[in-house]
Amino acid sequence: MATTIDLNCDLGEGFGAWRVADDEALLDTVTAANIACGFHAGDPRTMRRACEAAVRRGVSIGAHVGYRDLAGFGRRFLDVDPDELVDDLLYQLGALDAIAGTAGGEVRYVKAHGALYNAIATHDGHAWAVVEAVWRYDPQMPVLGQPGSRLFAHAREAGLVAVPEAFPDRGYLPDGLLAPRQHPGAVLTDPAEVAHRCVRLVTEGRIEAVDGSALELRPGSLCLHGDTPGAVAIATAVRSALVLAGVQPRSFV
Amino acid sequence: MATTIDLNCDLGEGFGAWRVADDEALLDTVTAANIACGFHAGDPRTMRRACEAAVRRGVSIGAHVGYRDLAGFGRRFLDVDPDELVDDLLYQLGALDAIAGTAGGEVRYVKAHGALYNAIATHDGHAWAVVEAVWRYDPQMPVLGQPGSRLFAHAREAGLVAVPEAFPDRGYLPDGLLAPRQHPGAVLTDPAEVAHRCVRLVTEGRIEAVDGSALELRPGSLCLHGDTPGAVAIATAVRSALVLAGVQPRSFV
Amino acid sequence: MATTIDLNCDLGEGFGAWRVADDEALLDTVTAANIACGFHAGDPRTMRRACEAAVRRGVSIGAHVGYRDLAGFGRRFLDVDPDELVDDLLYQLGALDAIAGTAGGEVRYVKAHGALYNAIATHDGHAWAVVEAVWRYDPQMPVLGQPGSRLFAHAREAGLVAVPEAFPDRGYLPDGLLAPRQHPGAVLTDPAEVAHRCVRLVTEGRIEAVDGSALELRPGSLCLHGDTPGAVAIATAVRSALVLAGVQPRSFV
Amino acid sequence: MATTIDLNCDLGEGFGAWRVADDEALLDTVTAANIACGFHAGDPRTMRRACEAAVRRGVSIGAHVGYRDLAGFGRRFLDVDPDELVDDLLYQLGALDAIAGTAGGEVRYVKAHGALYNAIATHDGHAWAVVEAVWRYDPQMPVLGQPGSRLFAHAREAGLVAVPEAFPDRGYLPDGLLAPRQHPGAVLTDPAEVAHRCVRLVTEGRIEAVDGSALELRPGSLCLHGDTPGAVAIATAVRSALVLAGVQPRSFV
Repeated sequence: MATTIDLNCDLGEGFGAWRVADDEALLDTVTAANIACGFHAGDPRTMRRACEAAVRRGVSIGAHVGYRDLAGFGRRFLDVDPDELVDDLLYQLGALDAIAGTAGGEVRYVKAHGALYNAIATHDGHAWAVVEAVWRYDPQMPVLGQPGSRLFAHAREAGLVAVPEAFPDRGYLPDGLLAPRQHPGAVLTDPAEVAHRCVRLVTEGRIEAVDGSALELRPGSLCLHGDTPGAVAIATAVRSALVLAGVQPRSFV
Repeated sequence: MATTIDLNCDLGEGFGAWRVADDEALLDTVTAANIACGFHAGDPRTMRRACEAAVRRGVSIGAHVGYRDLAGFGRRFLDVDPDELVDDLLYQLGALDAIAGTAGGEVRYVKAHGALYNAIATHDGHAWAVVEAVWRYDPQMPVLGQPGSRLFAHAREAGLVAVPEAFPDRGYLPDGLLAPRQHPGAVLTDPAEVAHRCVRLVTEGRIEAVDGSALELRPGSLCLHGDTPGAVAIATAVRSALVLAGVQPRSFV
Repeated sequence: MATTIDLNCDLGEGFGAWRVADDEALLDTVTAANIACGFHAGDPRTMRRACEAAVRRGVSIGAHVGYRDLAGFGRRFLDVDPDELVDDLLYQLGALDAIAGTAGGEVRYVKAHGALYNAIATHDGHAWAVVEAVWRYDPQMPVLGQPGSRLFAHAREAGLVAVPEAFPDRGYLPDGLLAPRQHPGAVLTDPAEVAHRCVRLVTEGRIEAVDGSALELRPGSLCLHGDTPGAVAIATAVRSALVLAGVQPRSFV
Repeated sequence: MATTIDLNCDLGEGFGAWRVADDEALLDTVTAANIACGFHAGDPRTMRRACEAAVRRGVSIGAHVGYRDLAGFGRRFLDVDPDELVDDLLYQLGALDAIAGTAGGEVRYVKAHGALYNAIATHDGHAWAVVEAVWRYDPQMPVLGQPGSRLFAHAREAGLVAVPEAFPDRGYLPDGLLAPRQHPGAVLTDPAEVAHRCVRLVTEGRIEAVDGSALELRPGSLCLHGDTPGAVAIATAVRSALVLAGVQPRSFV
């Protein structure tokens, strides 16, 4: 099994005077930072601070692209024309890359945010738009996402590298889908439990579903949530448990 | 005297469903397009259309950067911290460059818009911020602006190329400053007169001031306004007159 | 049959430096102005100019409320939570009412814009939200909309006055739905034809569908589009034809 | 001396997913809530929550109006035309009033935010605009602000009620101006000290300046900052100390 694993987390999700997560503490544990690009969060100053903090620690920078919806934090589906979405995504990619560049880094991968992330599991036009934008920006640039999504289907056709991620702090249904939030066990908050799931995922390629059955997953990255209470404690526990199990946290890109 | 001259014009200044100028017609006459980057105007789709139209005609693309002020079209001074302004400008530069790239072009120069353009004539912090942002983005990239401005002073210190522009459709005071808009002769609308001023500027290095005196100017580019009635007629007359006088319109970059 | 009829039109749809329609000319013909409230178009200055122009002519002011989407001009469905939509709508209503008040008028009715207008034909949550917002703001305030819509169903339950409108410059299918834009005859641009349809609608309660059959409609208002070429000519022809036919254009509210 | 005093605090300063202060806890101590209206902070949902929480406790609602600058939290001077500023302010006033109304309250007073608050101490055009907007909205509505400001001069001319406020957690210079933030003693964080200053202000009409001299002030309201660490502890200490000293916290309006 894998002896290294990527840990990714959303960062730089403030805007202007507003802050969300403890970016500095999270960056001490993860290996890849999904940095907001100004459409759902992330003004240029916030983006620069996040990029500089990531570069200082050798954490990879990913473009966390979303719908243009500051008021909704990018969590609401927006029925944008796919052609326009391509341009919206290129705009975000270029903007973050310029900020990352001045911080001594560069955008290394792309991950969709919020409602866009959910939409591209099934929405063909928006999934195509993400692939089209990334391919136009840099055909070598990997996308991080959900296995089985329309995103992955289009990425494969376009020859993009698509890296599957898993959500160890979220409950899985036996069919591999995430349990809806109202489902018991949908969100896990015990650091030890989440850490244990991470280790098993990486060393055995399995995670326990909400009904107790074992689900086979081969993620290239584990997504840790940064905006929940206890996020830093969970991330720290995950990293420690992985290292103890002989797994080195390392960026996938 | 010069046998070529650059003609620059603001383009892509719509936003979403809103349009301003007849971009296509203007692009047939100018050699450099100052394209809005989303902060004062220019959503990604509008930016892409402008970039594609420029690339088709071999017109150079410049980043027309401004304050974050869609409601005011970037025409209102915003007392932003210079450090934050650097990031705002890098963001705009990178965003336009990504859009230009997908259109087969690239950002070749930078020109400030509206209130920022006016501010950096005298505002030290904002002038520094423009130079700092351009220098960080690409130290080879020229800035277009007003001779004698704080922008030019900082550009010189930083080793940036600073290209002076003239405004043939605006009245000049004898001291070389532009006449305020309420001044008689501040705005010229006769195509033949503007064309004549352009030819004299390029072939003699002189322009007539509002008091009839001759003012010496050695512009590297002539700025034509695109958002006034008759803009296309003026631009066409200017181009014809220059060509007849043996001056080839050619991008400065 | 009716001897008066309301003519409504979207107005004030610029934003900052951007303009759309010839508001002044349109206001000379219509009797009710749907004025944008800042979410899809309409900065406060544009709103005030539109309100003042409406008040000068005795034209009723309606709140043209929409999704928060300036970049998309409110033409893209936004999956906002219905409870939040209520607040977004109250915000727009109050904002326009304050501006209308200082212009010597007041908001007299509500009409949804663009994607919201389309959504509330079938989207239960958003239709409820419009009714809830209007009812909370002023339970006497009528809503203008499509007969048969979910909006009208909820309005009826809440005891709101719901006024049906017709679109004389749009083609109707035999079942009463509007013909999709790509359908032949979907958009009518001949002033005489549109004027004739208006007269027949008001005097006979009938309009010719795209297949030539006669459709029965009893609109309380006729919607004229203001952002198309020839909009003023059409509106003028409609008004003249109605007056000649003995029908007095008069606000429904 | 006064046996009642108003305590005002900025509230509802989040936007969308972003939060700033512990609104609920602060509302347990203050008597007047300056609620952001969407231009520097405060989406409609956040505004409604703040209004409902204020109404539940009988706390007066004030419109905390600002420049249109979400990215800068309204803390940057924006050189908006005074006539346009009037409209921007009316828009905010009406929007909040609609939200307050649905929560069972109403806007009872106006206080400028951030850079606008600072500007109207000396900027004649913007001070006039605030007075003009309030006067147009409701000539009975008081404005809260700084004695000696241009705002107060214009308010007096217009016949508006202008209520002076003091800042007990900020250091005063001997001339009555606030000490700049870099000055030692500019910001006070000890709850007991701030509480003591409040009691002295209300019972003696005096506050100690940074040089130890006594400054005479007769504020109609005391402003407590809500966005600093320890804000709730300070507010609680102030309220307790006032009550113990026989002063009843009560809204000025």
